[in-house]
Amino acid sequence: MPGKLQAIPLGGLGEFGMNCMAFRWADDIMVVDAGLMFPEAELLGVDIVVPDISYLIENRQKVRGIVLTHGHEDHIGGLPWILSELNVPVWGTEFTLAYVEDKLDEHGLLDDADLREIRAGESFRVGAFSIHPIRVTHSLVDCVALAIHTPLGIVIHTGDFKVDPTPTDNHLFDLHAFAEYGKQNVLALFQDSTNVERKGYTPSERAVRRKFDEVFAHTKRRLFISCFSSSIHRIKLAVELAQEHGRKVTFVGRSMNNSAEIAEDLGYLEIPDGLIINPGEMKNFPPEKVCVMISGTQGEPMSALSRAAVDNHKHAKIEKGDTVVLSSRIIPGNEKTIYRMVDHLFRRDAYVVYEDGTSPPVHVSGHASQEELKLVINLVKPRYFIPIHGEYRQLKLHAEMAAAMHGSVGKVMLIESGDVLEFDELGARKVARINVGRVCIDSGNRTDVVEDLIIKDRRHLSEDGIVLPIIAINKLTGNVETTPEIVTRGFNPGENGLLEGARRIVEDTLAFSSEEEKADYGVIKEKIRADLKRYISKQTQRRPLIMPVILEI
Amino acid sequence: MPGKLQAIPLGGLGEFGMNCMAFRWADDIMVVDAGLMFPEAELLGVDIVVPDISYLIENRQKVRGIVLTHGHEDHIGGLPWILSELNVPVWGTEFTLAYVEDKLDEHGLLDDADLREIRAGESFRVGAFSIHPIRVTHSLVDCVALAIHTPLGIVIHTGDFKVDPTPTDNHLFDLHAFAEYGKQNVLALFQDSTNVERKGYTPSERAVRRKFDEVFAHTKRRLFISCFSSSIHRIKLAVELAQEHGRKVTFVGRSMNNSAEIAEDLGYLEIPDGLIINPGEMKNFPPEKVCVMISGTQGEPMSALSRAAVDNHKHAKIEKGDTVVLSSRIIPGNEKTIYRMVDHLFRRDAYVVYEDGTSPPVHVSGHASQEELKLVINLVKPRYFIPIHGEYRQLKLHAEMAAAMHGSVGKVMLIESGDVLEFDELGARKVARINVGRVCIDSGNRTDVVEDLIIKDRRHLSEDGIVLPIIAINKLTGNVETTPEIVTRGFNPGENGLLEGARRIVEDTLAFSSEEEKADYGVIKEKIRADLKRYISKQTQRRPLIMPVILEI
Repeated sequence: MPGKLQAIPLGGLGEFGMNCMAFRWADDIMVVDAGLMFPEAELLGVDIVVPDISYLIENRQKVRGIVLTHGHEDHIGGLPWILSELNVPVWGTEFTLAYVEDKLDEHGLLDDADLREIRAGESFRVGAFSIHPIRVTHSLVDCVALAIHTPLGIVIHTGDFKVDPTPTDNHLFDLHAFAEYGKQNVLALFQDSTNVERKGYTPSERAVRRKFDEVFAHTKRRLFISCFSSSIHRIKLAVELAQEHGRKVTFVGRSMNNSAEIAEDLGYLEIPDGLIINPGEMKNFPPEKVCVMISGTQGEPMSALSRAAVDNHKHAKIEKGDTVVLSSRIIPGNEKTIYRMVDHLFRRDAYVVYEDGTSPPVHVSGHASQEELKLVINLVKPRYFIPIHGEYRQLKLHAEMAAAMHGSVGKVMLIESGDVLEFDELGARKVARINVGRVCIDSGNRTDVVEDLIIKDRRHLSEDGIVLPIIAINKLTGNVETTPEIVTRGFNPGENGLLEGARRIVEDTLAFSSEEEKADYGVIKEKIRADLKRYISKQTQRRPLIMPVILEI
Repeated sequence: MPGKLQAIPLGGLGEFGMNCMAFRWADDIMVVDAGLMFPEAELLGVDIVVPDISYLIENRQKVRGIVLTHGHEDHIGGLPWILSELNVPVWGTEFTLAYVEDKLDEHGLLDDADLREIRAGESFRVGAFSIHPIRVTHSLVDCVALAIHTPLGIVIHTGDFKVDPTPTDNHLFDLHAFAEYGKQNVLALFQDSTNVERKGYTPSERAVRRKFDEVFAHTKRRLFISCFSSSIHRIKLAVELAQEHGRKVTFVGRSMNNSAEIAEDLGYLEIPDGLIINPGEMKNFPPEKVCVMISGTQGEPMSALSRAAVDNHKHAKIEKGDTVVLSSRIIPGNEKTIYRMVDHLFRRDAYVVYEDGTSPPVHVSGHASQEELKLVINLVKPRYFIPIHGEYRQLKLHAEMAAAMHGSVGKVMLIESGDVLEFDELGARKVARINVGRVCIDSGNRTDVVEDLIIKDRRHLSEDGIVLPIIAINKLTGNVETTPEIVTRGFNPGENGLLEGARRIVEDTLAFSSEEEKADYGVIKEKIRADLKRYISKQTQRRPLIMPVILEI
């Protein structure tokens, strides 16, 4: 069928997180995933970052919906923002939608949302596309890859995955479906690049069981286990082992509670009667009879574990001889916060078990390593291969890896967020760039955008503080009515008469300005700013933000 | 001899960096090392952090001097600050003093400094102490441990070390000296804890030669090698291999140049005539004939490598097919910046060689792993063992390790910065705490202290910006002369009339305040602040810094 298929990454290609990709056939656009990213430290006061979706908004009549591969924040966290701009149907598996519901509810968007449940192996239509979800394994449960049947051929989007031969829920990675597609001349494979730098295979989720076993066997007192609240495999293991070792289980922290509740409701966690206790009941059981599942692996300041570590949690008390397990990776940028928390735990004479490179591991990755990536490529044998989900170097390394697989890959296309990759009967090529970028969302209200200028100001303020020269001008006479007031914040003027000097500078600037200049507040403010900047920079070698204020009286 | 010996860590015990320890016998105080630490991200606008030395200042008549173990910033970087408060003699090896001179010169402190050169194996006196420096190996050259002979017995301070069997300069770790002291009933061993979490042995500096060899053999075009400028071993290797492979060498970046110059002057680098070229000459040589030693392994924004990566360096141009080697570790907290730079290098189609866990390594640590730590303990057999240089968990793990070595360790003392550890004829114990802490130094002028309050303000400003309600009060009548002006920065008031509302709030506050309140500017400002804070927080869920200003006219 003649026509053009476009793949347009809106986020996640060339950056870590906020995964979002649009596929377009004529007037039908479908979107795969709608993730967020957590801001870098220099984005001051920014809570989350989501993709710029102006492309979707410009084409709002054509957007048929969003299909989710799984429930991690970097795949669903941008939904509240996107749906508040563009309320389209959202497809996802049962578990994924449970997380989505929670999230939309929090933002008061649930009532208006059109959520549609899908199952691995059962096809559904979104506009011109017929989509066949394929079961994959990952650190979360109920994850799918998407085989997208388009008029031009089949496109496979892996979502996030690893090829886990022994997932704790026994829902296997559907090798057969990938193999079957491999016989059908797949047009393109879009594959997760996260772990392309790792050789070999990623260990199974079950690999942490040996370490957990060891810890349960050796722990003499209270056992605290912290993992990402979405690590259902990890929670399931801990619950099973607690039962075996005669420990009651309690969930501490809101996200941990939510997640366990969802997992239990949906049958991913089987919890025997009487195993769970409330955090408040902990004190009624001897320490060796309790296992506390607690949120806060990254040392987030307000998390349950961080607070427990400084003895500031109502129920979770960490005492001498207790054991704390951190079953998660250190997200880059969080090292200092995590180790600060670990130090507090050591100070309380707790044993702390964290990832230290020894075997058996206390944490395993959820993403496919090189051999798994190659396995999927060999199964699918796509005509085009496109690396997705990664920073530029990861995409490039993934592209190089695939390009060397002559037997199973036709051509490799390296694209980034904003590139429009077009397929037609003659082949594929980059045809255009669209506007993409990061939208910064402020805390407090999760749909409030923070503009670049505001962030730039905050960065300036944070480095050198602010100096405000304030003058009062009589609006009738144009006369300056007071000696200038100099106010500072986040800036130390010291004791060498800097403020007095600054006041004189402003007076001089005023004295040497014409009546006309003084009547034009824009001009006079700029003159004051420039003169004061020169003076302060010379006196202190610093560059505070200088903001003249004119009060009209 | 009856009397008391005190060991008083002023920094580095329970925190990473700013290593500094005082030893006191009666009226004689000597200080070992005077380091800095690099600030955490939340210390906004702070350039470096140095130890609070009020203890030394209170006892200024008793301080006999500072002895340096080696030239890394976390051991010498606090010197300008300390010497500007307390100008005492400084002892260090030839190479260490060369770095110190550079640093003091930069701060205009060199002329007044009293620097005294020491050599491994040659004892010297500092007040009541006789000090015998012992050659140790580390990632830097000319490093020493200190055997401090006190009236109460011998104390050994290891400084930073690893036991490198094949250092590139062939100056061996002096096992014999440690062994000899082991027969002399050493009172206390203070040992570096940095790598206590690593099993086994740290590889030799020479271990990177195999990787470097490989890279030199395979690189078809320009070769850029980046390492810490103080990695003299690494620079030496690169220079040797460049010579062997027929490449000219050029040094790019100020710190790299300085360091190479010092190393050559002092005989640590032998550079054949004609091997070195100026950066400007690079363009005259074919790409396969050039090796560029370039500073900036941590992706520091203004470093030579960072600028080269975005094609913003006059001489260092990175082109398709060039190779860039990052021969250093990723300092925690720098991941994002480093990977951003690596991404830029990938975009320029450069091959990037960085530490990825494969063997042979492109970087090795400079600190002793567990087996080396045990070796030194077994050689020295101290009556008391005190872990130094580490965060709390590292000190504690080190203490536990040593405590299990019954055959060679008497007693383990776990102390932190500020603890006063006292030895006498009966034993050792913590007897007191002194005031210690971090002094934050601002950029621009490296001896300017940034106060906590200023940093707190900057943090507040950086998160939510600032709102300034400004009113003019007639000082004669006490009347408010204008409608209040509301000025904001780093805070987005939006378009919903927030500023108008804020103005009304201030007017209301003024209207409902008595004449007395209005006459007391402190009171009226606080009332305005409180009312406005409530209003803005309710309207926007944000908490900008609110700073009322009253202009008296």
